[in-house]
Amino acid sequence: MTEPHELSATEAAVRIDDGDLTSETLIESCIERIAAREDNVRAWKYFDADSARSQAKALDRGPRRGVLHGLPFGVKDIIDTATMPTGYGSPIYEGHQPAIDAPCVALSLQSGGVLMGKTVSTEFASRHPGATRNPHNPGHTPGGSSSGSAAAVTDNMVPFAFGTQTGGSVIRPAAFCGCVGYKPTYGLFSAAGVKENTRSFDTVGLYARTVDDIALFRAGVLAVEPEPLNTPDLSGLRVALCRTMFWDRASDATKSVIENAASTLSKAGAVVSELVLDGPFEDYEATGRTVTGFEFPRALTFERTHHADLLSEELRDKGIKRGLKVNFEVYQAALRQLADCRGWLADAFSDFDVILTPSAPDEAPEGLGYTGDPCFNTFATWTYTPGVTLPTNTGPKGLPIGVQFMGPHAEDTRVLEISKAAFPVLVES
Amino acid sequence: MTEPHELSATEAAVRIDDGDLTSETLIESCIERIAAREDNVRAWKYFDADSARSQAKALDRGPRRGVLHGLPFGVKDIIDTATMPTGYGSPIYEGHQPAIDAPCVALSLQSGGVLMGKTVSTEFASRHPGATRNPHNPGHTPGGSSSGSAAAVTDNMVPFAFGTQTGGSVIRPAAFCGCVGYKPTYGLFSAAGVKENTRSFDTVGLYARTVDDIALFRAGVLAVEPEPLNTPDLSGLRVALCRTMFWDRASDATKSVIENAASTLSKAGAVVSELVLDGPFEDYEATGRTVTGFEFPRALTFERTHHADLLSEELRDKGIKRGLKVNFEVYQAALRQLADCRGWLADAFSDFDVILTPSAPDEAPEGLGYTGDPCFNTFATWTYTPGVTLPTNTGPKGLPIGVQFMGPHAEDTRVLEISKAAFPVLVES
Repeated sequence: MTEPHELSATEAAVRIDDGDLTSETLIESCIERIAAREDNVRAWKYFDADSARSQAKALDRGPRRGVLHGLPFGVKDIIDTATMPTGYGSPIYEGHQPAIDAPCVALSLQSGGVLMGKTVSTEFASRHPGATRNPHNPGHTPGGSSSGSAAAVTDNMVPFAFGTQTGGSVIRPAAFCGCVGYKPTYGLFSAAGVKENTRSFDTVGLYARTVDDIALFRAGVLAVEPEPLNTPDLSGLRVALCRTMFWDRASDATKSVIENAASTLSKAGAVVSELVLDGPFEDYEATGRTVTGFEFPRALTFERTHHADLLSEELRDKGIKRGLKVNFEVYQAALRQLADCRGWLADAFSDFDVILTPSAPDEAPEGLGYTGDPCFNTFATWTYTPGVTLPTNTGPKGLPIGVQFMGPHAEDTRVLEISKAAFPVLVES
Repeated sequence: MTEPHELSATEAAVRIDDGDLTSETLIESCIERIAAREDNVRAWKYFDADSARSQAKALDRGPRRGVLHGLPFGVKDIIDTATMPTGYGSPIYEGHQPAIDAPCVALSLQSGGVLMGKTVSTEFASRHPGATRNPHNPGHTPGGSSSGSAAAVTDNMVPFAFGTQTGGSVIRPAAFCGCVGYKPTYGLFSAAGVKENTRSFDTVGLYARTVDDIALFRAGVLAVEPEPLNTPDLSGLRVALCRTMFWDRASDATKSVIENAASTLSKAGAVVSELVLDGPFEDYEATGRTVTGFEFPRALTFERTHHADLLSEELRDKGIKRGLKVNFEVYQAALRQLADCRGWLADAFSDFDVILTPSAPDEAPEGLGYTGDPCFNTFATWTYTPGVTLPTNTGPKGLPIGVQFMGPHAEDTRVLEISKAAFPVLVES
């Protein structure tokens, strides 16, 4: 029998609407799942079963509040919550209690969602890892920085969770853990109340286990009417296979997954071409790192001034020291170059509907110290375009490998629809 | 004799460096100025003379901390400060004490600045006015939303202050009050710790009384080495006079100021042409309002949920009710259209160095209820380009009229340099 915590959010929502499931029953099932698995996965920085129960009971008693009515969600602990402490992955903020909910949380609650708790983030959504383990194998990283959210959703602890992406922090953990990750167009969800890492790149994203659930969650977070995703015909779909400049960092297994995906889509009638990133994309990685380098240490000025001793050595040396050496004019030139990349990509998108590209270089690396290389994710992040990763495959180590679709700026719905149509076709294709 | 509070920041910095002026003397002079004028101007939401004195004394005793060493600055009360309450212009946050300084404040303090206090903001940096009056005539608005900052700097209470601009909230108050206002390229200064109004547009900006002071303040806020601004030759400078689509909202006096400025620059050897905004700029105002309409009510979800009774009627009816009616697909299309405007303008800038355009439709309107029309400011805000307003003229009512220069995206230094070169030539030209 399917336990309530195994249901997709879309299914659970229908059952709650029909009176076949109460929020309390769903929440209790998720609480049990967390109790059974948390010692192994360590997804939660803060978890309050009683708070979740009382939210659910109140929702069961009241009228339908919105599209997320009675559905539980997790919040990366880099995002402010008024009723739960928010630690930003740093001992500086141990026990810190924000005064208000970040807009993305407030909107989810207004839509009837149940705040289950705060999920583990790396330190300030940067590289220094938290305690979370890959739910498929505790000896491997779940990826980062949204480690806990990706692991919790994958492991059926909650159907939804928030992440944030500055380099590859939503898509990569989803790919490593094996759930659906959605990095929207830059700015689509408010990043207010999200501890800033790199102003120019920080993007709030979503985790779920199905593409329909992503669309449902998104409707709640945007406070818009949910429109069921269409399933576009793959025949005639113009797909650009983009190996990016990082192809040689991809494992053979990852290369095969992406090339097989292209050929499967082609067999389904899609018109597949190759997209080569040139022009303003030269030195893309260094250019983006220049921007992060300049902005990150400045975002953390208060912490550097008042609590330098509580920053990790990794953060001090790699993030801050290196960043403070970035020259201002070089930074400004980097901003202009990335704006050119956005224009170049917008033009390129006139020739195709969607880009197919890796979600990560390989399966999740062994060990918990290194959250993996975000190279295949910065393409969408820094160009401000929407990206979706789908857990289509399993690699030779038995860990998930994903494929990523990217769409044009502010065409998020379309890339979600294409992802929905392609997912069943691509699973272990 | 020139009182210390009348000095430009650049002059004061030199005197402090030379040992001819202490921070304490400068701060005391500013405190006296505030005491003498505040009943009339009402620029400050929170002012703490003792805190300012003790900061100054500590700086006088210690080594030089940075480029703002000993110089006082004001902070718009929409921006978080760890040592002073932050009210966001709303009774909801009366007495609210943030845990940390916003990065822009922390950076100013790290550079040696003295935090004088919090300046009056309209409600959530939107339209509902605060108590501030125009320092030239208390019967007229100072503009908004950065009302107190523009008034305080103009009135010699402090040489520097922070503002924020979502529509026209930095440039317009500067033009109405008569100081220099600088709205940087979008994202140049972190907006973390700034109460969000419209994520896609919110930009932290600066006030000072000279362009050199803006450059000095900017170096402190960016934590970069200050480079003295060059004074480019006006001869051969390619200037685009842009009347925008709002020209018929400009008063005759404003039209004359701008057209005279163009002819003065031309006489100085500049090559003046006209820039007509067409193509993606059709319906520009409605397009931008669609974005603000969609984003603003969502940014305020917590306040709408928990404190709806403490929102002004103006905000509820104009900002929120109207905004919640904006359709999501229309919003997405508006984002794409504004991205097209940015691309169009970047291309247009290959033909000229700087745009000359009005800073506001007219002198400051009479009364305190209406902060004025931001139409001439949204051009720079929504295209993410840097804008500088210079207090060059006085209108028929005896109130200031400014001229605005705009430069290409992430070419802020260049537009500051051109502004510096043009300012003395244009004053009452």
